[in-house]
Amino acid sequence: MAERWDTLWTNLRLATMVADGRPYGAIEDGAIAIRDGRIAWIGPRAELPANDARARHDGGGRWATPGLIDCHTHLVFGGDRAHEFELRLGGATYEEISRAGGGIRSTVAATRAAGPETLRAAALPRLAALAREGVTTVEVKSGYGLDVETEVKQLRVARSLGVPGGSRIVTTFLGAHALPPEFAGRQTAFIDLVAGPMLDAVAREGLADAVDVFADRIGFTNEETGRVFAAAHDKGIAVKLHADQLTDQDGAAFAARHGALSADHLEYANEAGIAAMARAGTVGVLLPGAFYFLREKQLPPVEAFRRAGTRIALATDANPGSSPALSLLLMLNMGATLFRLTPEEALSGVTRHAAAALGLGGEIGTLETGKAADIAIWDIERPAELTYWIARNPLHLALRAGRPLELPR
Amino acid sequence: MAERWDTLWTNLRLATMVADGRPYGAIEDGAIAIRDGRIAWIGPRAELPANDARARHDGGGRWATPGLIDCHTHLVFGGDRAHEFELRLGGATYEEISRAGGGIRSTVAATRAAGPETLRAAALPRLAALAREGVTTVEVKSGYGLDVETEVKQLRVARSLGVPGGSRIVTTFLGAHALPPEFAGRQTAFIDLVAGPMLDAVAREGLADAVDVFADRIGFTNEETGRVFAAAHDKGIAVKLHADQLTDQDGAAFAARHGALSADHLEYANEAGIAAMARAGTVGVLLPGAFYFLREKQLPPVEAFRRAGTRIALATDANPGSSPALSLLLMLNMGATLFRLTPEEALSGVTRHAAAALGLGGEIGTLETGKAADIAIWDIERPAELTYWIARNPLHLALRAGRPLELPR
Repeated sequence: MAERWDTLWTNLRLATMVADGRPYGAIEDGAIAIRDGRIAWIGPRAELPANDARARHDGGGRWATPGLIDCHTHLVFGGDRAHEFELRLGGATYEEISRAGGGIRSTVAATRAAGPETLRAAALPRLAALAREGVTTVEVKSGYGLDVETEVKQLRVARSLGVPGGSRIVTTFLGAHALPPEFAGRQTAFIDLVAGPMLDAVAREGLADAVDVFADRIGFTNEETGRVFAAAHDKGIAVKLHADQLTDQDGAAFAARHGALSADHLEYANEAGIAAMARAGTVGVLLPGAFYFLREKQLPPVEAFRRAGTRIALATDANPGSSPALSLLLMLNMGATLFRLTPEEALSGVTRHAAAALGLGGEIGTLETGKAADIAIWDIERPAELTYWIARNPLHLALRAGRPLELPR
Repeated sequence: MAERWDTLWTNLRLATMVADGRPYGAIEDGAIAIRDGRIAWIGPRAELPANDARARHDGGGRWATPGLIDCHTHLVFGGDRAHEFELRLGGATYEEISRAGGGIRSTVAATRAAGPETLRAAALPRLAALAREGVTTVEVKSGYGLDVETEVKQLRVARSLGVPGGSRIVTTFLGAHALPPEFAGRQTAFIDLVAGPMLDAVAREGLADAVDVFADRIGFTNEETGRVFAAAHDKGIAVKLHADQLTDQDGAAFAARHGALSADHLEYANEAGIAAMARAGTVGVLLPGAFYFLREKQLPPVEAFRRAGTRIALATDANPGSSPALSLLLMLNMGATLFRLTPEEALSGVTRHAAAALGLGGEIGTLETGKAADIAIWDIERPAELTYWIARNPLHLALRAGRPLELPR
C-alpha cells in the first residue's frame, strides 16, 4: 500500500542532528516525507517506500537541518540603548550614563511607556531577522516591565508574535530580572510581588511556558530564586535560571537541584554544578553575544561540560543592554571562535539541545519521524559552514510545519 | 530658473559624513537632488531651490549615509576552509592540518584549479551579501594565484563582478601575498616574478587599481616590498601594504614613506609610523574580523591614531583563512566593541576614510554636491545604531549612481 504524504523532498543531504554516532546524524542522499505538518518518513532515498506524495520537491543536493531554535532572547522591549553605547564609547562614565537615565532602567521605562502595538512593531523586524536565518522557534522573555501590568503586556506581545506559519514563539516570565527603582531597598517585597500577584496574573492568562530568574551577584539570591521557583512549581510551570554569569554563585547546582530546564550564561559555573546539571538533564545555555559585547574574559568551562556530558545550547540573548544581537548563525561562529565549540557542538546547540532547553525535545530539534516538519535548507557544501562563516546567511528555504516559513511584516 | 534634476529625495535625515564639525556631518530634515548619477544639490529642505525634478521620493524621515565602502577584501577565491576550521576545533594540530593540505596553500590550489566561471559563481553571493547591507563599493584583491596565469584570472573575475548598477569594484594586485610552494627557498626569485612578468601582465590589461604586499614576519621583507612598490610606481599604480599585523616591522612608516594609500591591519604599528602615516595621508585600515577570528590579543593602537590624526578605515578582510566575514556592518560593531572606536569613527571608517584608502576621496565617501549618488537609506533612529546592533541589517534602500543598487544574481 502506497504511503499518502503531502510533500516529499528528495536529493537532500540531511544533518538530522540525531545523536546516533554519525557526525551531525548525517544521511547523504536523503529524503523527507511530510504529512499534516510532521515528518512522516525520513531516511536514505534508496529506502523510500512506495508512496503517492501530492507534491514532490528536489532539494538540489543541498543540506537540510532542523529549523534553528533561539532558546534565549529578550526580543520585546521599548527603546534601544544605541545612545548610551555611543556615550560610553565617547568616554562617559557609568555614573554619567546612569545620570542620563541609562542602563536597564532606561529600557524598563521605555517598555512601560510603550503601547503594545509599539512594542510589537519594534519586535517584528527583530523576529524577521532571526527567521531569515532559518530560526523556526524563538523563546522570548519578559523582564523589562517589573510591574504586573507591564510584564503581562510584554508577554501578551510576545505571544502575539507567534502566528500560524511563522516562527513558533515560546514565552518565559522573567519578572525577577532586576529590582525596579520603586522597590529600591525592598528586594524581599519585590520577590513577594513576583512570586505572588505578578506570577498569578501571568499564569491566569497562560502567558508563560517557563519562569526564569536572574540570579547573580547583581541579581537575586538563591533563597529569593527558590521562592519564585516554588511558586512556579505550584502552578506546574517549568523553571530556568540566569546563573553564574559574573561570579560563581553555585547557580548551576541550584538550577539542577530545582530540575530547571536550563541554566544560562554559566561563565563562572563550577565543575560540581555542571555535573549536577548533567544528572538532572538541565541544559547549559551559553550566550557568546553577551560575552563578546561585555568584553568578558572568563570563558565558560566548556571542557567541564564535555567531561560531565552536560548538554550545551547556544542563543543570541538578543537584548538592548548586553547583547543587541540578531543573528543566531553568528552565535555559532562566536561559540566556536570564542568558546572553542566544535561546529557540530555549535549546531547541536541551536537544534537538539536548544529544543531540550525549552522542554520541546519531543517536538523539535532533530529531523525524526513524528517531529514537526520545521526544516532549514542551506546553500552549503558541509554543515561546518554554518559555523565557519562570520555573518553569512546561506539559507535557501525554511519550512515551518512543512510549509515555507512566513516572515513577519 | 528652476533646477533640472532627475530625482529629488526629501524628508531624509542626512549623515553626510562631511568633516564639518557637526557629529556625522548631520543635516536634519534634508534633501538630496540627483542628476546624471551625481549629487546635484544637498542641504536642508528649507533651503531647496526652485526645481522641476522628474521624480520625487519621500524618505519617510529615515537616515541616509554615503553608500558603504568595503576597502579591503579577498572576495574571489576557490574552495573554502570550513573543513580545516572543523579539524582545528576538533583538536587537530597545525601540522596535521598542513599535512591534510590546509592553510593558504589549499586556497591557492583551489583557486588555481577553478575556472573563471566557478570563481565568479562563488564570489557573486559574497558580493550580494555585502551589497544587501548598502555596500556600494568593494575592493577585491588577488593573491591566491601566485602565478601569472592565476593572478590575472583572479583579477579578471574581480573586474567582471563590477556591472552597471551594481556595487563598484576596485581591484588590487596582491601577487606578493605569500610564497607559493614551487618557490620554497627562492623568495627573491618570486619577487622577481611578481615585480616583473606578473605585474606586467596585470598592468597590460589594466587589471589593478593598486598594488599591495603582505609584509610581515611571515610575509615579505621591507626590501622586497620596496622592489614591488618601485615597479608599481614605474607603472603609475598606487600602492598599499599589509603591515604590522603580527609584529612591529616598522611597516606603518614604510608605507608612509612610499606614499601608500593605506596600511592595513596595524595591530603592532609604532607611534612614529602612525604619525608618519598622518603626514603622508596614508589611511590606517583596521580589520577587526581577522583580529576576532584569529583570537588576537594585541589591540591596534587607536589612541595613537587619534593623537596623530591618522585616518582610520574599517573593512571585512573577507577571506577564507583569517576572516570569513561577509558583513561590513558587523565590522562597525567589532570596531567599537573590540577596538573601542566610537560609532562616528566606525562609520567614517566605512565611508569617508575608506574612500581615501582607495584613492577615491573625490568621488565617493561623503554626501556632497558633485560626488556619485551612492547612498544608503536606513530604518534607524540615529546613526549610532549602525554600530550598536550586532549583525542586524536595517537597510531600507541603497542607491548606486542615483538608482536602486542591483544585487548580483
